[in-house]
Amino acid sequence: MIQEIVLLRRRPGMTRDEFLGYWQEIHGPLAAKLPGLRKYVQAHVLPDPFRADLPYDGIAELWFDTPEALHAALASPEGQAARADLPNFLDQDKTQFLIAEEVTIV
Amino acid sequence: MIQEIVLLRRRPGMTRDEFLGYWQEIHGPLAAKLPGLRKYVQAHVLPDPFRADLPYDGIAELWFDTPEALHAALASPEGQAARADLPNFLDQDKTQFLIAEEVTIV
Repeated sequence: MIQEIVLLRRRPGMTRDEFLGYWQEIHGPLAAKLPGLRKYVQAHVLPDPFRADLPYDGIAELWFDTPEALHAALASPEGQAARADLPNFLDQDKTQFLIAEEVTIV
Repeated sequence: MIQEIVLLRRRPGMTRDEFLGYWQEIHGPLAAKLPGLRKYVQAHVLPDPFRADLPYDGIAELWFDTPEALHAALASPEGQAARADLPNFLDQDKTQFLIAEEVTIV
């Protein structure tokens, strides 16, 4: 299994609640349609009373069987539709896309 | 459940393999001793042929029952021992610590 990990920074002008609502209710169902997607989890970052400026507002993890399956999903019509939605809620200059392998320690 | 998420950047001078080996074999067992830890997963970021300078080399996720349980774990002797190990393999200026709530979409 392989993971796409996205470190999301919300679009300037959106509140945290607006961002989390859009991500979960509008973008989530779009991304959930990706072919070959095995699991999809959103981590909603909590406010930190000691830090006004958090680098990210959320972290998405999407699992696929292989890197090829991930690439095929991103190139599919569903992948293109999900990507076209990103400017609606993300600061794309500050959002990061990574690919990773998961190792369970506990 | 609550997650501590750590976005890890490796110490300058370490190779990717040295970093991943240290993190999994040395630091992993230290962090695994945290009291109240329910689950602990390391995501090992894969090299990207199109990007020489990735912002992070790994992402750690540690689950606890409550924010209070997380704070107690970090303040415990095991938490202090795990923290004391961080300079051995991390660039602490570029490493980020976040707290999040998980939402399963798929």
